[in-house]
Amino acid sequence: MRFGFVNEDNMSILTDLYELTMAQVYFKDGMNKTAIFDFYTRPVENRSYLLNAGLEQLIYYLLNIRFTDEDIDYLRSTGKFDEDFLSYLKNFRFTGNLYAIDEGEIIFPNEPVVQVEAPLIEAQIVETFLINTLQLPILVATKAMRSYSVARGTILVDFGLRRSHGTDAGMKAARASYIGGFAGTSNVLAGKEYGIPIFGTMAHSFILAYGDEKKAFQAFAKVYPENAVLLVDTFDTVKGVENAVKAMKEMGMERFKGVRLDSGDLLKLSVEARKILDSNGYKDAIIIASGGINEYKIKDLLDRGAPIDGWGVGTELVVSADLPYLDCAYKLVEYDGRPVMKLSKKKVTLPYKKQIYRFYEDGKIKYDLITAYDEEVKGGRPLLKKYIENGELVADLPSLSKIREKAIQNFETLPDEMKDINSTVHHLPHVSSKIKETVERIIKKIKGEI
Amino acid sequence: MRFGFVNEDNMSILTDLYELTMAQVYFKDGMNKTAIFDFYTRPVENRSYLLNAGLEQLIYYLLNIRFTDEDIDYLRSTGKFDEDFLSYLKNFRFTGNLYAIDEGEIIFPNEPVVQVEAPLIEAQIVETFLINTLQLPILVATKAMRSYSVARGTILVDFGLRRSHGTDAGMKAARASYIGGFAGTSNVLAGKEYGIPIFGTMAHSFILAYGDEKKAFQAFAKVYPENAVLLVDTFDTVKGVENAVKAMKEMGMERFKGVRLDSGDLLKLSVEARKILDSNGYKDAIIIASGGINEYKIKDLLDRGAPIDGWGVGTELVVSADLPYLDCAYKLVEYDGRPVMKLSKKKVTLPYKKQIYRFYEDGKIKYDLITAYDEEVKGGRPLLKKYIENGELVADLPSLSKIREKAIQNFETLPDEMKDINSTVHHLPHVSSKIKETVERIIKKIKGEI
Repeated sequence: MRFGFVNEDNMSILTDLYELTMAQVYFKDGMNKTAIFDFYTRPVENRSYLLNAGLEQLIYYLLNIRFTDEDIDYLRSTGKFDEDFLSYLKNFRFTGNLYAIDEGEIIFPNEPVVQVEAPLIEAQIVETFLINTLQLPILVATKAMRSYSVARGTILVDFGLRRSHGTDAGMKAARASYIGGFAGTSNVLAGKEYGIPIFGTMAHSFILAYGDEKKAFQAFAKVYPENAVLLVDTFDTVKGVENAVKAMKEMGMERFKGVRLDSGDLLKLSVEARKILDSNGYKDAIIIASGGINEYKIKDLLDRGAPIDGWGVGTELVVSADLPYLDCAYKLVEYDGRPVMKLSKKKVTLPYKKQIYRFYEDGKIKYDLITAYDEEVKGGRPLLKKYIENGELVADLPSLSKIREKAIQNFETLPDEMKDINSTVHHLPHVSSKIKETVERIIKKIKGEI
Repeated sequence: MRFGFVNEDNMSILTDLYELTMAQVYFKDGMNKTAIFDFYTRPVENRSYLLNAGLEQLIYYLLNIRFTDEDIDYLRSTGKFDEDFLSYLKNFRFTGNLYAIDEGEIIFPNEPVVQVEAPLIEAQIVETFLINTLQLPILVATKAMRSYSVARGTILVDFGLRRSHGTDAGMKAARASYIGGFAGTSNVLAGKEYGIPIFGTMAHSFILAYGDEKKAFQAFAKVYPENAVLLVDTFDTVKGVENAVKAMKEMGMERFKGVRLDSGDLLKLSVEARKILDSNGYKDAIIIASGGINEYKIKDLLDRGAPIDGWGVGTELVVSADLPYLDCAYKLVEYDGRPVMKLSKKKVTLPYKKQIYRFYEDGKIKYDLITAYDEEVKGGRPLLKKYIENGELVADLPSLSKIREKAIQNFETLPDEMKDINSTVHHLPHVSSKIKETVERIIKKIKGEI
């Protein structure tokens, strides 16, 4: 019986088989000049912008990837690999460079979010894990920022661990939603590993086990007098709030943290709950809403004046329910100094090692310009930063709270028409004429050959 | 810098904070009689049936959950827990019972797929991880089975690792899709950990690095003469197939494994590819299709006669794109011998420790009957099996290939109208009169009290 945990020892073979078989062919053919790969996303209908996240985990991977003897033994057992290549893997390290846009930056489609410059074999082998590590954090950070953008200062907490896609998704979702402006998570391990504030209330089972709301509320408040958010909808929400008030009064509590509504008409129920709390002197008690919450519901409820102070946002956040995957890719753009691209009617790959410059007007993003790395550009803020050089970390990694702070500031640089959660405005980067001309030259060459 | 890997040492705190705060209240109150919790799913529009998976990982968790000193130190640092409770956690073991439906069984909404019978604190603490561990495998096994059901014997391979939601999701998706009838996965670590057959072809970057299709094909076939599936759509698919044939002929190869089409009109291109392969004596060479494949496309292409022999199914499979989460729950149904339930207009929780009996007619499932555990029932196959008793494994765990075999057999027991991937037929279980009467009695009691 095995769980199949992924860890730093075995993460190297959490990869598609073809990365390793191609690598063996490159190895035997002596094909190992410098390659440049871009990771980028393609436009999606229902997102005007994306928020970058997941970079720290990618850096961890690139700095620590190793093939253990045990994994090499497994590879040998498949009959697909020869001893010379297995010896190469035994000493494998990532020795290349990583250029990347910071976590917490706004990113747009067709821009290289991450660029790997390394000997071809290394750059190829890291492909699968790299995409796996970046996609979900970008999805969840973006989804979180959308909630943040309509929450008007109310508190957002990630409640999604149980519905996230496995253990690692729960960790990534907690971290990414924090970057996207959430106040914290219910995920205790994420609290420990990343230093994210942790939050919790109580479950229906807690009420049912006591069999009586008042008893249950009092039992909880006795142990957590400062921190009791009482779940009031197990039987009937209004009666539940009344029972909460009665229970707290009987205990002589002059204040308590608040109540949580997990079902029903949240506008109507939050208004009634507020009245009951206020009229009983619990003006400080907050109202938390949960149960199928997303950015659309938050906006709608606040627009209609619901006196809700905080939100437990779960499932739809952590699986990014209205966009459960990104159309993203990791594509070879240069090999041994030669710009390359795949020919495709719909999908664009831009050749060359690149830089992105972001231009602003009145503090708002005006456009991004993608250039070859060595082109001279006046003005504009370069977005790609060198994080790894020759396999070594060469940039400081900001703290998670710093990333979160920057993300919130960066959100303010979005043009207003892109901030709207219903916006379908897309902002495609400009491309320098050097790149454009190369694209045309390569297309001509390929078409000529065909 | 931390990745935040989850492992057997820290999995105990991969949980919602409220599980632990409620547990501390139970602990201080001496509330620790036997509780029974049901894990079940609720009906969803676009799935007539679900395929059960993920149980082995849950069992692993229940047998191995421990709180390490490091994690207890973290809990202490939060200021939310007292020493007496932290000491309790230090010696925490799961000492209860687990009843579960086998992996590879067809499951229906509202049925307890898993039932935990344990001291309340233990049954509560395991909630979050339990749901996290089961949901994705059920989603992906089901989605895989839907592809299997329309694939007419063509080969299905999981290509989704890069787009799965994090590392663990990639592992769970590989395992679950294998259970659902897939032939294997591209995920090398899943091959190692679970013994699943691994498959791979080549990437566009491989062609681009060589700069010439024929050269690239020959380089690959030289190293993998038996196993070269040549990717032919980098520039132009038809020319790509012709180049594949030329390349293999030049090498004097009388046969080669096949080609992969990753874009374009797969019907038209597969027909043309088949012609080129056949007319050049490569009748055994297979055609693999990939790129946005799902069960609807497989059915459509095979219905229209596409000569496709195998499928790389990626993104939509592993994120279960048309159903990225299950409406599933883990609910207290009995505490200290007292049947309990939450009152809700739409959602049903059935009280009692239970059994499910499946009735067949002419080899097809007729209906399931949910009863209290000790009710006498004539005929019917009991679905809930005791896997863990007093914290110890008491049932044999079948091999993954055995589970897969059973799943494929079980699919055949579905009524024909439910097998259709567009079916909206739902099969809700019957409920014994003992349970029904108890539900009514409890509702009356709660409403009376309100």
